[in-house]
Amino acid sequence: MAKIGVFDSGVGGLTILKKLMDEFPLEEFIYLGDTARLPYGSKSPETIRKYCEQVMSFLIQQKVDAIVIACNSASTQVPEKEWQGIPVFNVIDPGTESALKISKTLRIGLLGTRATVGSNVYHDRILKLSPDAKVFSQSCPLFVPLAEEGWIDDPITNLVVFRYIQPIITQGIDTLILGCTHYNLLANSIDRAIRSSHLEIQIADSAQALADALKNEFDSGRLQYAKKASLRILMTDESKHTNEWTQKILGLNLSENFETVVL
Amino acid sequence: MAKIGVFDSGVGGLTILKKLMDEFPLEEFIYLGDTARLPYGSKSPETIRKYCEQVMSFLIQQKVDAIVIACNSASTQVPEKEWQGIPVFNVIDPGTESALKISKTLRIGLLGTRATVGSNVYHDRILKLSPDAKVFSQSCPLFVPLAEEGWIDDPITNLVVFRYIQPIITQGIDTLILGCTHYNLLANSIDRAIRSSHLEIQIADSAQALADALKNEFDSGRLQYAKKASLRILMTDESKHTNEWTQKILGLNLSENFETVVL
Repeated sequence: MAKIGVFDSGVGGLTILKKLMDEFPLEEFIYLGDTARLPYGSKSPETIRKYCEQVMSFLIQQKVDAIVIACNSASTQVPEKEWQGIPVFNVIDPGTESALKISKTLRIGLLGTRATVGSNVYHDRILKLSPDAKVFSQSCPLFVPLAEEGWIDDPITNLVVFRYIQPIITQGIDTLILGCTHYNLLANSIDRAIRSSHLEIQIADSAQALADALKNEFDSGRLQYAKKASLRILMTDESKHTNEWTQKILGLNLSENFETVVL
Repeated sequence: MAKIGVFDSGVGGLTILKKLMDEFPLEEFIYLGDTARLPYGSKSPETIRKYCEQVMSFLIQQKVDAIVIACNSASTQVPEKEWQGIPVFNVIDPGTESALKISKTLRIGLLGTRATVGSNVYHDRILKLSPDAKVFSQSCPLFVPLAEEGWIDDPITNLVVFRYIQPIITQGIDTLILGCTHYNLLANSIDRAIRSSHLEIQIADSAQALADALKNEFDSGRLQYAKKASLRILMTDESKHTNEWTQKILGLNLSENFETVVL
């Protein structure tokens, strides 16, 4: 009976957790947000790797049976499909596969953090699967702070989105990867910028593709359904702001299952 | 012969270091930016305090004779004037004194991070020195990302500054404290927002007041001038982005005096 460990540098990965809880309503989840050291997306590959290893070791101590890296910046530094005998799912592989499935022109846009764009991991994996593809990337360091500030559907956010997205839209992409779990929170502004271009651009849904990958694991019998819903939310730093976001994204009162931990 | 340790969560404190290097050109400085864990301004008081203690212990191992906390969020959690026998200078006391010196109406505005505003430290220290004062605070979580993105003198930055600053300007303040060392980088946009209000509002200069406080320490003989310029820049995480900012703010080629350290 599987317990799934899901982690992110902060609260962005809760959008992935929410999807997994919807898809697997009778599953045990443990979520860890490394809020004492967030964000990962502005840090070096070596530092991100060190933090990921510490988080994954911690989750394994919590007896998880699978690890989901619900953070693109973290996923760039964990190529392994298995860690200390435990299966590991990143968000980049499903995002890549989803994009290649929907793209007809193979001109694909990527929005991500500095770490994700700078790593070239999306670019390399897309080209490995489809050598004729073209990937156009843009790092968007203001998206996470805008989402965290709650400036959703906001004229300033629309301007920032338009500025970041315009250079890759003009490359004639037909598919866009939102390469950071926070960016779904800005989906309306991103849609608006796309519509204003009068181009047909589809957004690749990493969360659904990740849920599908995990479903395969259950269906194949490599993971057993827990048949009993449970949830623990762990953060390395506690703040009112983090708690508010956790409740907003999950729609849960967290008083009973929220803990602060030291890695 | 004194060696001065200066620290910040990242590169913002370099604006303070620059001021100190200009004021004390024959002094030994060692700067530590905790870039592996930045920013501090979104984290809890307990976590910020823990990080400050680790950084200060590290600086003392480096044989500094005084510590300058060139970060407002960090300063809120270090009330001590001395740590393990070493004098400690924070940026909040000089900012407070400078504001009270220039304010005539004692209506004072404060812009800062969530941690700095949430701590109420400026508010409490201002009211301790001047019980009739009124302090109007606004946390500005987008200012640091905008400055780091290099969107200086930019229409989007102007809009964000205007939105944050408007509610405290309408309180009739005559003095504004920039309660984060990054905010000086947005000085032009802040000036523009103030001018558009047609009010007389002066900005309190923490960096100059801090340099004056340190000068007192030298003049009194409690610290001895080193008489030999030297500089070491240490960061807990290295990135191209951090190096660029360090060079931009200090105007130095850092190849020789840049090191990455683990705390």
